[in-house]
Amino acid sequence: MSRLEPQPHCFEYRRRVEFVETDMAGLVHFSNFFRYMETTEHAFFRSLGHGVHEIADGQSVGWPRVQSSCDFFKPIRFEDQIVIRLSIQEIRRRSVRYLYYIFKEDESGETLVASGRIVTASVQFNRQTGDIESVEIPKKLNSKLQAALDSQNT
Amino acid sequence: MSRLEPQPHCFEYRRRVEFVETDMAGLVHFSNFFRYMETTEHAFFRSLGHGVHEIADGQSVGWPRVQSSCDFFKPIRFEDQIVIRLSIQEIRRRSVRYLYYIFKEDESGETLVASGRIVTASVQFNRQTGDIESVEIPKKLNSKLQAALDSQNT
Amino acid sequence: MSRLEPQPHCFEYRRRVEFVETDMAGLVHFSNFFRYMETTEHAFFRSLGHGVHEIADGQSVGWPRVQSSCDFFKPIRFEDQIVIRLSIQEIRRRSVRYLYYIFKEDESGETLVASGRIVTASVQFNRQTGDIESVEIPKKLNSKLQAALDSQNT
Amino acid sequence: MSRLEPQPHCFEYRRRVEFVETDMAGLVHFSNFFRYMETTEHAFFRSLGHGVHEIADGQSVGWPRVQSSCDFFKPIRFEDQIVIRLSIQEIRRRSVRYLYYIFKEDESGETLVASGRIVTASVQFNRQTGDIESVEIPKKLNSKLQAALDSQNT
Repeated sequence: MSRLEPQPHCFEYRRRVEFVETDMAGLVHFSNFFRYMETTEHAFFRSLGHGVHEIADGQSVGWPRVQSSCDFFKPIRFEDQIVIRLSIQEIRRRSVRYLYYIFKEDESGETLVASGRIVTASVQFNRQTGDIESVEIPKKLNSKLQAALDSQNT
Repeated sequence: MSRLEPQPHCFEYRRRVEFVETDMAGLVHFSNFFRYMETTEHAFFRSLGHGVHEIADGQSVGWPRVQSSCDFFKPIRFEDQIVIRLSIQEIRRRSVRYLYYIFKEDESGETLVASGRIVTASVQFNRQTGDIESVEIPKKLNSKLQAALDSQNT
Repeated sequence: MSRLEPQPHCFEYRRRVEFVETDMAGLVHFSNFFRYMETTEHAFFRSLGHGVHEIADGQSVGWPRVQSSCDFFKPIRFEDQIVIRLSIQEIRRRSVRYLYYIFKEDESGETLVASGRIVTASVQFNRQTGDIESVEIPKKLNSKLQAALDSQNT
Repeated sequence: MSRLEPQPHCFEYRRRVEFVETDMAGLVHFSNFFRYMETTEHAFFRSLGHGVHEIADGQSVGWPRVQSSCDFFKPIRFEDQIVIRLSIQEIRRRSVRYLYYIFKEDESGETLVASGRIVTASVQFNRQTGDIESVEIPKKLNSKLQAALDSQNT
């Protein structure tokens, strides 16, 4: 896929780069791009009316990451206004694969600064034993994710 | 207390400033000094043979902070070698008050770069309800802290 | 000053607690409260039309911290909606003293969760030599800060 | 490449997981694995006697990231002792490609918990204009990297 093609997406999130996110090179530290992606994913979950991290019966459900990557095209700096667009690439039984496109916004328009991927697994944590068990994505959530994916592609 | 007086302490911890801890001013971000203090406190607990955060019977014990402050005398930068010295100022029934002195070390010796304070409370978390309850410092830990305080002042 | 009295303030900033800001105790890590204060201060500067960190003639002006403290009254958690209120306590020739009140907002209203202080110095960084020199607050900024302080107290 | 094969490496770095690196799931936040990789890379540079971020003639040289990814096999937790092994995969004219293997160490031995990649570019920052220009890896550093790569494969 070319970087220049418009990318279908089902959610977007805006934020401004904070001072603490920069490093001595004057640029946003690369690890923070992964945090921007996660924050977007969590805002997307809220938009679906679904909690990211829920506790019930001594079990907590969560979404640990299986894989994540990012390609960095241009640096971003303190106070830059950015928009992160989330696409669902694939919904599997026990995991979801997201794509992210991060743009810098200014008076001249949007510039793609990075693209990333997160593969995340649906798990249950047993809070007594500390065990983590891969589980199927809850049905209700699965339907909402599927609806978001359908809307993204039309 | 003058900055120049030697300060009795009962534990010290060394580390090197990491790149991600700097900001675009080229200095360690001030919030990271609080993290250095905490890391030292946790290493001190390990030196006592006591876990910082333990889980038992669905209760987890922890040490949330009641108050913290830091005075910043000199900036520190990427790759600076620092040593953090911890003193116990006071052991109360349900809380401990620590003092920290942070020094930069180089070939010319030590320079005091910051001093800080953390007041931390002994609590139990009920992991089902999320409630937090102030509790007395466990007897065994209390004895160890008291012994550390005694050794500090001699 | 009692915690319960309404506190005059000249700026407020809202944000939602992010997942990465929590720790294994399930609460926002105490160091992040200092970051919330700073983010509010920077948004306040933007509201005055003034950059926080400017570069000119190989000099960059900045605001390293001289002192900071925080009292923690109640824990906050992932996805909590918070509002941070900034007051100017004192404008000196080469430094500013801010107070911060952090509230959690929910359907039942506002709860004070922390209050903090930052004393910050006006400096110039010489980017060639790395030297930091305390300088007077630029006149134009000083006027804006003074106007904000006046409006706060009326 | 199988996960089980021993992986040649030219540098290793040990550290202990810090409290602030965990999140409310009780695990190290995935973004911190990228920070562990970077810290290892910087320690590797120090071992070569080469600074990571140097300033000369108003130019600063640095290593912004072009791409980074991580596969997460097992969670790690507060106080876990980890070792990060760095391999050079390829030295190009203006960039270096590193591989990282992160292991948890305990009395039963080593467990591979993650593997990652960073592609990093050699650049010059013009501190006056803010421009970033890709440059060839300095000859002296290139020789040292090449020597490390040679030793890795024997």
